[in-house]
Amino acid sequence: TDSHHSILSFSLNSFSVESEKLQSQARVIDELSTLSDSPAPAVTRILYSEKDNLARRFIKGIMEQVGLSVREDAVGNIYGRWDGSEKGLPAVATGSHIDAIPFSGKYDGVVGVLGALEAINVLRRSGFQPKRPLEVIMFTSEEPTRFGISCLGSRLLAGSEALVNTLKLAADAQNISFFDAAKSAGYNLSPDDLSKMVLAEGSYAAFVELHIEQGPLLEEEGLSIGIVTAIAAPASIKVEFEGNGGHAGAVLMPNRNDAGLAAAELALAVERHVLESGSIDTVGTVGILELHPGAINSIPSKSHIEIDIRDIDENRRNGVIEKVHKTAINISQNRQVKLSEFKIINQDPPALSDKSVIDSMKFSTEQLNLSHKFMISRAYHDSLFMARISPMGMIFIPCYKGYSHKPEEYASIEDISNGVKVLALTLAKLSLE
Amino acid sequence: TDSHHSILSFSLNSFSVESEKLQSQARVIDELSTLSDSPAPAVTRILYSEKDNLARRFIKGIMEQVGLSVREDAVGNIYGRWDGSEKGLPAVATGSHIDAIPFSGKYDGVVGVLGALEAINVLRRSGFQPKRPLEVIMFTSEEPTRFGISCLGSRLLAGSEALVNTLKLAADAQNISFFDAAKSAGYNLSPDDLSKMVLAEGSYAAFVELHIEQGPLLEEEGLSIGIVTAIAAPASIKVEFEGNGGHAGAVLMPNRNDAGLAAAELALAVERHVLESGSIDTVGTVGILELHPGAINSIPSKSHIEIDIRDIDENRRNGVIEKVHKTAINISQNRQVKLSEFKIINQDPPALSDKSVIDSMKFSTEQLNLSHKFMISRAYHDSLFMARISPMGMIFIPCYKGYSHKPEEYASIEDISNGVKVLALTLAKLSLE
Ligand SMILES: [Mn+2]
Ligand SMILES: [Mn+2]
Ligand SMILES: [Mn+2]
Ligand SMILES: [Mn+2]
Repeated sequence: TDSHHSILSFSLNSFSVESEKLQSQARVIDELSTLSDSPAPAVTRILYSEKDNLARRFIKGIMEQVGLSVREDAVGNIYGRWDGSEKGLPAVATGSHIDAIPFSGKYDGVVGVLGALEAINVLRRSGFQPKRPLEVIMFTSEEPTRFGISCLGSRLLAGSEALVNTLKLAADAQNISFFDAAKSAGYNLSPDDLSKMVLAEGSYAAFVELHIEQGPLLEEEGLSIGIVTAIAAPASIKVEFEGNGGHAGAVLMPNRNDAGLAAAELALAVERHVLESGSIDTVGTVGILELHPGAINSIPSKSHIEIDIRDIDENRRNGVIEKVHKTAINISQNRQVKLSEFKIINQDPPALSDKSVIDSMKFSTEQLNLSHKFMISRAYHDSLFMARISPMGMIFIPCYKGYSHKPEEYASIEDISNGVKVLALTLAKLSLE
Repeated sequence: TDSHHSILSFSLNSFSVESEKLQSQARVIDELSTLSDSPAPAVTRILYSEKDNLARRFIKGIMEQVGLSVREDAVGNIYGRWDGSEKGLPAVATGSHIDAIPFSGKYDGVVGVLGALEAINVLRRSGFQPKRPLEVIMFTSEEPTRFGISCLGSRLLAGSEALVNTLKLAADAQNISFFDAAKSAGYNLSPDDLSKMVLAEGSYAAFVELHIEQGPLLEEEGLSIGIVTAIAAPASIKVEFEGNGGHAGAVLMPNRNDAGLAAAELALAVERHVLESGSIDTVGTVGILELHPGAINSIPSKSHIEIDIRDIDENRRNGVIEKVHKTAINISQNRQVKLSEFKIINQDPPALSDKSVIDSMKFSTEQLNLSHKFMISRAYHDSLFMARISPMGMIFIPCYKGYSHKPEEYASIEDISNGVKVLALTLAKLSLE
């Protein structure tokens, strides 16, 4: 077709590797990583913290440099827009997040935001003119660190009154409410503003996210690009046990109801029930386990654990959640502790990539002579929620040993550059459709 | 004997219950409890914190009101002295602590400090004149909360070069060194000053501590006074595991080495090995269990647990410690996590009360027509260390349901008053010997 032909010639002219450009991209990633609350190489960037605010300003600055018109919504999703030649058409969007869980790395999310801006930069310098608008989105709080809610920004766009109600009550570990935290970062919003964020299906023509794989497959198989066909179904659960506590020397063993040991048992049960699923695709993690009062000579009177369970098969995952719930009840009975909370924070269905977006990603990869495979995303992403209102696709690039969510996370600038090229070409192609 | 006779007449004249005096004592306990970093009824008073400093000033003020001469040593043990009629004799001492672990109660330690001052007050108002000096000691950091070292002040008096070396490296959770923390509270001390604190055996003629039982026996049996014959042998252990961490969605179960699950297994093993001892007197607790990085979607790459194991039989306790150590090694092998620390912080022998101090406590209890029993202290106290340099005894009073180290901790003002009377008479008797 004509549009394929014009992209093809554009790609062959503009996508040569310039080592100077690569170095400058590496510098920008490094610069963003210094906006962190933990010493390098660890990155910690928490929603509405001072460092998060500085990083937001940094991203808006680049959007302006690249020539995009910048807009921010009520919770701080940031949009950089390049108008298309045909007014009124829904935009093709791309983007990811820049928040980082405590002591994590500098590529998760960041590659999909800075890479998207670089892709736009490449397209603009090449003289490309989109038909549909192109939009880069930096989503607010993909990570659940502060308020326990993942993909906050994209969830709100996809629409959820339940989420709005949850946010009305949400508070962080310091008991700062979501609204106060937002206000302190300059987002003076009301619950009404949240409800108004919902986008109608069809608001975007397509959404594409570039991301590091966060798994070892591409590196192990020596492939450049992963074309994501589905995102696994994540669920997260908060559990609290309460016992009587007491003095570690004075309360004899038969008189105890130790909330900490209840939590320890449940953490091990999560592992057991996940393994019982029999599928390699079922994973479960207890990443948070807190004891109260937390003194060596005090029997824990309260415990709090947070559980993450995922699968590409939603029913199988829900079966594990049920088993974990039953075991929590059994533990509370056996240990005579109160199961004061067993709350499923989210229990999202999996998302499928859109066939036409997959086709565009595959076409672009082949045009650029890059090796690829189709794969499943075991981590979730803002794409999981954008898929509810838009055709969705994801581009994965290799990362060192599959490491993510830790300081050793690494993607080479060559691999990032390959991802940026595939993204640029995919956006260009989709914008002309 | 003459001395017995003079105490007897003194006690019959002076020890009537005055409801006004009782109310004022309850007020002083309440007032001290407000110097806390947690909302009432919970009390949190951590070594060298602002609230700890205010509480120290409060205690020194009462010592001065009562007419004692006040002195403070390098780490802030506070001494209030009443000179005796015969110069040069070693003093009879009493005292306890006022620091409080997070979210604990207002009686642990406090009863032994404020009660000692009230006992002195009673003796002074009654016209009693001691032969040996009487001294009230408020010990620094009986609780191990901030630097992981229990009975800091009394351990230093009992002498331990190993402890001085530990303190040179000690830092709290915010990485503030022991010396910096002390300095911020006005104690500008050097390691040398610590070494100089050691007291020779015989520096005190006797040491007696009044304390709530922290167990249910006196209340259950309807008795007023517990005469402590021995203090159980406490040990504390720090353990750290290290794994590879990683993304909770992306790292498949067979590829994990989860430091958090290793900690959970060890916590349950502590309970198992303690129960295997077969004795009701063996107790073990995991009061601290921390995961790093502590995010719901991150596999724990590090875990830290602190274990408290006690027994009245030192060898049996040490056998449990050995089993826990072996299990920690097994867990690290099975889960392929590194056992990066297994450190026995302290492993103290039990202490026996002195026969002549026991006799004095029993004599006083009987003089006052109070019911009593001989008992073992399962909690440790500064008395455990004072016993190394002085004849030692402890007076227990009932507390509600045996609760301690939690906000529900409670002792009635009548029970406290009985303890104060027994203490006063015991001090009087010992000071004349
Ligand atoms: Mn992430
Ligand atoms: Mn991400
Ligand atoms: Mn205590
Ligand atoms: Mn105590």
